[in-house]
Amino acid sequence: MILTVTLNTALDITYRVRSLRPHTSHRVGEVTERPGGKGLNVARVLAALGHEVTVTGFTGGDTGRTVQDRLTAVPGLVDALVPVSGPTRRTIAIMDERSGDTTQLNEPGPTVTPAEWSAFQEAYEDLVPSVSAVALCGSLPPVPVGAYAGLIRTAKAAGVPVLLDTSGEALRRGVAARPDILKPNTDELAELTGSHEPLRATQDARRRGALAVVASLGKEGLLATTPEGRWRATPPTAVHGNPTGAGDSVVAGLLSALAEQLPWPDRLSRAVALSAATVLSPVAGEFDRDTYEEWVPRVAVTGEVSAA
Amino acid sequence: MILTVTLNTALDITYRVRSLRPHTSHRVGEVTERPGGKGLNVARVLAALGHEVTVTGFTGGDTGRTVQDRLTAVPGLVDALVPVSGPTRRTIAIMDERSGDTTQLNEPGPTVTPAEWSAFQEAYEDLVPSVSAVALCGSLPPVPVGAYAGLIRTAKAAGVPVLLDTSGEALRRGVAARPDILKPNTDELAELTGSHEPLRATQDARRRGALAVVASLGKEGLLATTPEGRWRATPPTAVHGNPTGAGDSVVAGLLSALAEQLPWPDRLSRAVALSAATVLSPVAGEFDRDTYEEWVPRVAVTGEVSAA
Repeated sequence: MILTVTLNTALDITYRVRSLRPHTSHRVGEVTERPGGKGLNVARVLAALGHEVTVTGFTGGDTGRTVQDRLTAVPGLVDALVPVSGPTRRTIAIMDERSGDTTQLNEPGPTVTPAEWSAFQEAYEDLVPSVSAVALCGSLPPVPVGAYAGLIRTAKAAGVPVLLDTSGEALRRGVAARPDILKPNTDELAELTGSHEPLRATQDARRRGALAVVASLGKEGLLATTPEGRWRATPPTAVHGNPTGAGDSVVAGLLSALAEQLPWPDRLSRAVALSAATVLSPVAGEFDRDTYEEWVPRVAVTGEVSAA
Repeated sequence: MILTVTLNTALDITYRVRSLRPHTSHRVGEVTERPGGKGLNVARVLAALGHEVTVTGFTGGDTGRTVQDRLTAVPGLVDALVPVSGPTRRTIAIMDERSGDTTQLNEPGPTVTPAEWSAFQEAYEDLVPSVSAVALCGSLPPVPVGAYAGLIRTAKAAGVPVLLDTSGEALRRGVAARPDILKPNTDELAELTGSHEPLRATQDARRRGALAVVASLGKEGLLATTPEGRWRATPPTAVHGNPTGAGDSVVAGLLSALAEQLPWPDRLSRAVALSAATVLSPVAGEFDRDTYEEWVPRVAVTGEVSAA
């Protein structure tokens, strides 16, 4: 069982319109809805890969109920979201059919009371001992900014490996609690370390506390700096498509292979293949299974193992 | 008990944003939600006036459940919506704080199967005999275009007065079934009759089947052409504000006074005062009770009673 944490859950709604023109009225051609927030996306990919996965975080109001209904419909996925009194936020992506561009509207998340935050921490402490890995994903709602650091310490105290995928101050505070894997993209890594040179930045991020750092370099694949060695994993060809969810697929690939106790090169090739299969999928945030299976053996992983 | 019918129910969501800029991302500052669709608005005003009111129409999916939760929280309002398998539509109004303008996104309504339409007709037939008046409000979802004509005939067969407030083909087909009151605005009346001259147009609408026609002339108040006589009702001063829901308040005022068996001039002064109190309310679609009570005796009603 893998546990993913999404403190800022959402219901992601996509509207297709001919062309968005401010201050006019539009008939929406097509509406799609799905649970959103990075940890829920990671969980869906893990479940599709055949893993048992538990999701936790917050849920509230009618939107939260909708999110939970959708999650429990996914085979292999267990809903352990914790109730809050405020409503789970919606995000609306308005896709302009003419230009292909998207306009995004993000509702504010619910407030989280100190009592609700305590209830979440207790639920999390109860879940952690029985899982093989934990992923802490996405931005923080209004909870203490050191929230991720506390959750990382809880996992480590239970001997469960923990991956952190966030940004800004939540990342800065979280990394100091020594997560097993940090998964930043190049912007997040540069913001954390001040360096735009990936190798130097991943090394710096390890000095700040992360045991291993897997930086996603976009089309160029992944760069991993770990206690076992340093690797670069690149897709066989450059992929073009919708990058939505590609980062979440990297996290799912790393966790999936970690849960199977595979060595780093296998974790990285799985993550790169999943990410590419997500970019190439016609449905945003989903992955194309054929592409994934075909690409895993074709990902080039080069690097060096650390001296024992 | 008054019955309002809303075949195209909705959840009306309003987002406040600084300024809507296509193809960018926006944080929504404030979210408000309420049940929408003309008949539900009319019912809310009637309930606020102290009437017992039953609402029917269609409800489906998570959005329908939210609409129903909100409705049952209104004192005096009874939810008799009929389930459909598709989800109730949402409408999103994006209010631009800088310009004050609104951008509207309307989801398509659910499809209604022949079996669902039959189930609604049966529920309606069961409700009608126990009510004092029926209002049929708003546009039609994909049901037979003669839907309103059938519902009017059912009410008339039960001896219950029925008001029709719709537009386009639904209005054209509905009026032929001889509703007791037709409540068009000037555009709807012109589309129905071809005449932009209100007095001529209301007379023409009566010839097409309506027993009484109450045309809303915007700031100029109401013009009523009825079997009992002809009246014009005008507010004491011109009002400036948000016209959202003003037409629904006219319907609520007419029904409320009809249920109390008040004569036409009293029905009209109530409708005009309610409409003005809605335009002047700081909250779109609600009415200001003090303005309403103060204005009822100040509405000027002039006209002539028909020769017996």
